[in-house]
Amino acid sequence: MIIDCHGHYTTAPKALQAYRDSQIAGLKDPAQAPSPAKLDVSDDQIRESLEGAQLKLQRERGTDVTIFSPRASAMAHHIGNETTSRHWSRACNDLIHRVCTLYPQNFVGVCQLPQSPGVPPEHSAAELERCVRELGFVGCNLNPDPSGGWWNSPPLTDRHWYPLYERMVELEVPAMVHVSSSCNPNFHATGAHYINADTTAFMQFLTSDLFKDFPTLKFVIPHGGGAVPYHWGRYRGLAQDMKRPPLEELLLGNVFFDTCVYHLPGIKLLLDVVPIDNILFGSEMVGAVRGIDPRTGHYYDDTKRYIDALTLAEGARRKLFEGNAFKVYPRLKARLAAR
Amino acid sequence: MIIDCHGHYTTAPKALQAYRDSQIAGLKDPAQAPSPAKLDVSDDQIRESLEGAQLKLQRERGTDVTIFSPRASAMAHHIGNETTSRHWSRACNDLIHRVCTLYPQNFVGVCQLPQSPGVPPEHSAAELERCVRELGFVGCNLNPDPSGGWWNSPPLTDRHWYPLYERMVELEVPAMVHVSSSCNPNFHATGAHYINADTTAFMQFLTSDLFKDFPTLKFVIPHGGGAVPYHWGRYRGLAQDMKRPPLEELLLGNVFFDTCVYHLPGIKLLLDVVPIDNILFGSEMVGAVRGIDPRTGHYYDDTKRYIDALTLAEGARRKLFEGNAFKVYPRLKARLAAR
Repeated sequence: MIIDCHGHYTTAPKALQAYRDSQIAGLKDPAQAPSPAKLDVSDDQIRESLEGAQLKLQRERGTDVTIFSPRASAMAHHIGNETTSRHWSRACNDLIHRVCTLYPQNFVGVCQLPQSPGVPPEHSAAELERCVRELGFVGCNLNPDPSGGWWNSPPLTDRHWYPLYERMVELEVPAMVHVSSSCNPNFHATGAHYINADTTAFMQFLTSDLFKDFPTLKFVIPHGGGAVPYHWGRYRGLAQDMKRPPLEELLLGNVFFDTCVYHLPGIKLLLDVVPIDNILFGSEMVGAVRGIDPRTGHYYDDTKRYIDALTLAEGARRKLFEGNAFKVYPRLKARLAAR
Repeated sequence: MIIDCHGHYTTAPKALQAYRDSQIAGLKDPAQAPSPAKLDVSDDQIRESLEGAQLKLQRERGTDVTIFSPRASAMAHHIGNETTSRHWSRACNDLIHRVCTLYPQNFVGVCQLPQSPGVPPEHSAAELERCVRELGFVGCNLNPDPSGGWWNSPPLTDRHWYPLYERMVELEVPAMVHVSSSCNPNFHATGAHYINADTTAFMQFLTSDLFKDFPTLKFVIPHGGGAVPYHWGRYRGLAQDMKRPPLEELLLGNVFFDTCVYHLPGIKLLLDVVPIDNILFGSEMVGAVRGIDPRTGHYYDDTKRYIDALTLAEGARRKLFEGNAFKVYPRLKARLAAR
């Protein structure tokens, strides 16, 4: 089975954005605020939004299941307040649930959390629990910077986040570390903010004892781990200079990378330096880069092609496409069996 | 000739830090502030600080000249005010000048700029001009985030920076984009902030027309270009989605990467994806990572070894070790000839 651990509902029906627009308008003028429950999308609209996009690409590329979450750039936790984020997250997660119910063979849900700047992360635990226990989701996306580019929350290794981690451990779900859009003009969202957040999170984990406190807590760092595999020697050397344990021992039982790297040399490097047990197949499809590479004639984000071009042993291939996902998302196997 | 484009004076005599400590103490208690002119370091102390470190490593590794600048993490533009930064930059640059005067065969100067949060970049132009015209320096380090991790200055492509770029062009000197220490607890300096800044700057350049306004302006993005070469497909694809010209046309006449990547697979990727005309040899020695890699028995930052392990054509090798440095630092050739 080929499991893509990183897909967002970037093609959701227009009604979702209309709901969000009303919600944002309602921040200034409460008369325009939509009812939290009101999101008028038909099953056919959902089918239509997926058939020509994610489902078509799954078929064309030969992948089976996508671990699917709301559009990351639209989470925008910096907009409004805690209530805004709670309603918006609920609407987005409910829509993912409908996708997974309509296409149980193709999608498994991961939720957006109702984070908000300055709000304790444990306030996200109720929505996480609802999504996992009631909707059958297998993980969450955790935004290390709910401010959208101002980075004024404590690092992910701070006790600030611990109550949420306790719930994640209890529910047996991992988090993908994933920022949203940037309102800091220095950071282009998909070209800088996303990649920087990945690199930042890894270095936070490297310098802390978080995984001594939470031995079973797991994170997926997307976009191929940001800059980390390219600078693997730097990170090994920094850990060594700081008298930290080797990376294998320090964090590779808890931290995993996806394969959202959009060219063959990058995927080759990732597989060369990062242990195969720590790599999960992912494509971010339909996501940050939507074009066709004129050099290859194929979509940049068709990451399966790059992997297929490398000669991986069957055992390694299986871990990357399937086995590691079952390890990192302990609820996934039962979820797929129940289809 | 082998030119290392990225070396900092991280081993400066203790008197330099003592001067800085007094300067910082003087911010609260002016009685403790040192005279701007007072930095009591002997030639022998300078020799001693280099003989066992940079000079020894140059000899051992077989490199000839290092383009040498003040310690980047100590620039700390966020401390104090414009005057603090002016005095501190002058002290650091004067010390680099003494190094270059004592060892004209081994070092060529690049200056720290007296940036300060909220202060117009053109206020750095006088120190740049002094360093270039009076001290024979060939470039500068430009900090895109003088706040030290809060990223509240305009992007490098904003007109905010143009007056400084005008002086750089007039003086024929490039800038290395280099942040300093981080006072944001999210960002480890050498493990996250440095690499993020590199990635961020590249994406700023990609989304702007800066080089239409300044066709001869040149930047070196250090640390192997941050995450950029690893995600080369992502950047090519993002440019394409945004209907920007191909990277070659858009910015590769103006933007260059060094080779500060501390393992062979990383260097191999860099040379595989980035045109050879855009890569300058660099090691950041003595810098961010000081240990010996137990897997190779050699220093992580001995980047020449990784390059030597690859089979580069002689023409390519020459560009990387020498030719590109002469192109990016137009004053370098005359400076070396004058020794």
